[in-house]
Amino acid sequence: MPFETSQALRFGDCDLTGIAYHPAYFSMLVEVNRAMFASFGVSWEEMMLERNLGMPVLKMDIAFEKPARFGDVLDFAMHVRRIGNSSLDLETFARVRGEVIWSVRQRIVLTSTEDHRSRPWPDDVRAGLETYMDPPA
Amino acid sequence: MPFETSQALRFGDCDLTGIAYHPAYFSMLVEVNRAMFASFGVSWEEMMLERNLGMPVLKMDIAFEKPARFGDVLDFAMHVRRIGNSSLDLETFARVRGEVIWSVRQRIVLTSTEDHRSRPWPDDVRAGLETYMDPPA
Amino acid sequence: MPFETSQALRFGDCDLTGIAYHPAYFSMLVEVNRAMFASFGVSWEEMMLERNLGMPVLKMDIAFEKPARFGDVLDFAMHVRRIGNSSLDLETFARVRGEVIWSVRQRIVLTSTEDHRSRPWPDDVRAGLETYMDPPA
Amino acid sequence: MPFETSQALRFGDCDLTGIAYHPAYFSMLVEVNRAMFASFGVSWEEMMLERNLGMPVLKMDIAFEKPARFGDVLDFAMHVRRIGNSSLDLETFARVRGEVIWSVRQRIVLTSTEDHRSRPWPDDVRAGLETYMDPPA
Repeated sequence: MPFETSQALRFGDCDLTGIAYHPAYFSMLVEVNRAMFASFGVSWEEMMLERNLGMPVLKMDIAFEKPARFGDVLDFAMHVRRIGNSSLDLETFARVRGEVIWSVRQRIVLTSTEDHRSRPWPDDVRAGLETYMDPPA
Repeated sequence: MPFETSQALRFGDCDLTGIAYHPAYFSMLVEVNRAMFASFGVSWEEMMLERNLGMPVLKMDIAFEKPARFGDVLDFAMHVRRIGNSSLDLETFARVRGEVIWSVRQRIVLTSTEDHRSRPWPDDVRAGLETYMDPPA
Repeated sequence: MPFETSQALRFGDCDLTGIAYHPAYFSMLVEVNRAMFASFGVSWEEMMLERNLGMPVLKMDIAFEKPARFGDVLDFAMHVRRIGNSSLDLETFARVRGEVIWSVRQRIVLTSTEDHRSRPWPDDVRAGLETYMDPPA
Repeated sequence: MPFETSQALRFGDCDLTGIAYHPAYFSMLVEVNRAMFASFGVSWEEMMLERNLGMPVLKMDIAFEKPARFGDVLDFAMHVRRIGNSSLDLETFARVRGEVIWSVRQRIVLTSTEDHRSRPWPDDVRAGLETYMDPPA
């Protein structure tokens, strides 16, 4: 079961041709990532400011299928594809009225914000992520 | 003599009606502030990360005169109106092809990023700011 | 009675000193404006794309009282202070845990996106705005 | 020979951990795309507003190698890898002090903003793009 959440395209997220300005999608995606962690009780404030952990993105492969327009609501489904020792593979679909408009595969790594080296996923985070585990077919 | 610098409106700074999205102006204004400090040899990296000083804005009064369009270059003129013990009053005009399109008065205060209390302007910063001193008529 | 809505500060809305980057507030404010119109049944999509009307901001006076931090939720209260023939005066308070962190007075004008001249507020919009009418004391 | 241009990371492009907020990179990349077209005399204003052409991105594959920090200047090198009838493959490297910090492969398609169907590259654009043609080894 993927993690699901929705966000409306903001007025400022549209370009002068009337469709979504694609850089805005990545701020929306960061919010989906954050909301997934919050859904299993781990806030990014705690991760970053108390546990001194960061989650930089190593790779992102994006396919844009259709444009979004002002007024559209994007429905996100984020699938956990693989949980490594300190890495995480996610695949996320953005849909408008049921149709995929873009999708993205991300590889994320857990690091210390002090020495910038990788760290194993803490047990509570790993347990939370497993809730959304959905290996590729 | 005001501090002068120019910035082109970026593609993503325009809204779907084809004119500048006004929140983008404030990111441009932050860059004008930063560039003025750099012009007298004080980088914000040094201010924030080495001297542990921040410069929060207390007040901003903005008047929008005309819209900017994609392709326009904004020419900024930033006047130092008053340098207090730890405060700074700036007035900035944004022009396109010689015409003022918006202007803003800002009051800024120097604070410690450690105890969040105000600090007097360091001598090198005060000397730099005085270069652009131009009291209101 | 003001129009009320809430928005969480997004991760990307915070600067490297850990507090809200103030230009991000103006994108939030645009969303509050848009949501107020939606609350009385008038979408900005319809205003802009069907009725060919725009609502440029003429003036904004902002006072910043306290910083917001990552994780904070901003509770907005938007008061309609005056409805002119084609102008609109709004005053908005942003609160975190009950305390005002910033406030802004805006003057907005209704214009045609075709000839860029002012237009009187349509009756349905005027009736909606009156719902939140709250003249200054 | 790639197209080369540089952009400083803006203050608002950094997140609260002090490094670049990666969604900001995509606004920078849009500017690199726009500047490459301008370098051979074709403005996006003309493309979009006079010729009614858009250039949506179909795919982007990004690899992040190292973080950028506030104060860093990103040196971009954009290579044209393939020019199809209406498609364009670009590969772009972002370097800080000579080291690649991220790279991206983009596939772009030329479309009409009226009927949203693909269009062949106009001769002047094709000739300009060929200047930076640099097929993968």
